[in-house]
Amino acid sequence: MSAEQYQVEPPEEGNKNVRHNRFVVKETLEYLAHLRQRVKDIEGFWLHTLINHSQIAAVTTSKEDEHALSYLQDIELVQDANDFRPFELKFHFKENPYFSNTVLSKKYTLPKGTEAAPADGTITDELRDFEGVEDLEASTVKIAWKSDDKNLTKKHPRVVQGGHDHKEGEECDHEDDGGYEGDLGSFFLFFETAEDPLQIGEALISDILPDAFAYFENRGDNSQGAEFGLDSEDDEGDDDELDEESGDEEGSIDLEDEEDDLPSKKKRKLAKGKNGQ
Amino acid sequence: MSAEQYQVEPPEEGNKNVRHNRFVVKETLEYLAHLRQRVKDIEGFWLHTLINHSQIAAVTTSKEDEHALSYLQDIELVQDANDFRPFELKFHFKENPYFSNTVLSKKYTLPKGTEAAPADGTITDELRDFEGVEDLEASTVKIAWKSDDKNLTKKHPRVVQGGHDHKEGEECDHEDDGGYEGDLGSFFLFFETAEDPLQIGEALISDILPDAFAYFENRGDNSQGAEFGLDSEDDEGDDDELDEESGDEEGSIDLEDEEDDLPSKKKRKLAKGKNGQ
Repeated sequence: MSAEQYQVEPPEEGNKNVRHNRFVVKETLEYLAHLRQRVKDIEGFWLHTLINHSQIAAVTTSKEDEHALSYLQDIELVQDANDFRPFELKFHFKENPYFSNTVLSKKYTLPKGTEAAPADGTITDELRDFEGVEDLEASTVKIAWKSDDKNLTKKHPRVVQGGHDHKEGEECDHEDDGGYEGDLGSFFLFFETAEDPLQIGEALISDILPDAFAYFENRGDNSQGAEFGLDSEDDEGDDDELDEESGDEEGSIDLEDEEDDLPSKKKRKLAKGKNGQ
Repeated sequence: MSAEQYQVEPPEEGNKNVRHNRFVVKETLEYLAHLRQRVKDIEGFWLHTLINHSQIAAVTTSKEDEHALSYLQDIELVQDANDFRPFELKFHFKENPYFSNTVLSKKYTLPKGTEAAPADGTITDELRDFEGVEDLEASTVKIAWKSDDKNLTKKHPRVVQGGHDHKEGEECDHEDDGGYEGDLGSFFLFFETAEDPLQIGEALISDILPDAFAYFENRGDNSQGAEFGLDSEDDEGDDDELDEESGDEEGSIDLEDEEDDLPSKKKRKLAKGKNGQ
């Protein structure tokens, strides 16, 4: 049976996906407008929110990365619901020992030759065909490091293809980092390079920002908590356990998904409540 | 850091989830209204759409199950966007050798004591706290089998907890069925029992119906194609390969996810296009 023979259904499927993406962007912008003002005085809110995501945890491997991210005060998302594709992430930092920038801004733009969405909301083939961050061009950001000693990307460079660069006795658990061979290096390489082997940009825009408070509480769909089986139902009264994950001082990261059966994964898909309110 | 201490964000998170669920139900109903009339004359549309989902494939283990499902002409979803929780699935069958019912209707209702959603759209705690199909009560459906010889649930019963019931030499690959020990038995047990160990109801309402044409083309998020690495990008010009999966005459099912690294999974999350139109 040829699939092409029965191509009766698109572009309705593509239209549906565009409407869904627009809805999610609109909701995410409203959610962040509501959330950001409420969490801006919570010490370490964005550090914990970020490193509770398994992919961010995998690249935030040094204590210095975590320390530098503890100065992150706000993440601002600039995005347009009508043309939901390009976006900008503005990371606002407090005065800190590492760099003098107050904002690190990472932009994802449409490649040259790609038309912007019509302002009247018309759905074009280019909107229907959009595949996500992988279709965009990522900017690089110059970080004004205060000294070589504080230059985290120089101290923790990315070492590709088995070129492990660990000191003797240092813990090494990079073999499972999503198929990436080598040392992923500092989180701040996300800003300085366009390359994004662990798809941090995708994790931020698709997972973390639409559901930041859930990640802060370690119950996001791709949070470390979820991997360790701390589903929302199990969380009630389990704050101590959650805290151990969030405030983990060992910095050891285990990317193994311990719940690898299909039904358990499904359970986390629905937009759902029971958040202990 | 106590999560409770910073419970500043709900119920906005719950409200967001309710709005999202309402949006998805509305879109799914419109999508199905559009799709169903276009596919009703495509031979085997719903059979292929169903068995391309990995969880349905796991319980459609006999050739007779597949043959009986080949008479499935339409799936009708009855659901209300305002109270997005309860729903009914009406499976419309053509005249067939197995049973005399023309409709098998499976209902998921709110448990006794749960209030229906206010008609004016007000978001209640019960709506915010809804966790999905697991919070509903599933009906059972009496199937009027035409003879004992055609009674598929009697011929292929569910055998729980290692009580394997295979004839000698018969293939046995149930160990990986989502942690369920034993033989899952006929797909039609989904109608006759309220128990749903592989969460077929959840797969239908959350995965298959909102994206039925993608499952028909074996490119749904939980399709067999996705598991074998046939992402939409790889599909172009690969119709033969797709057909082999869909029309597989061996009936052997492999539930192993061969792409178990995080980034690959992420790629399938976004509502996206490139459907070969």
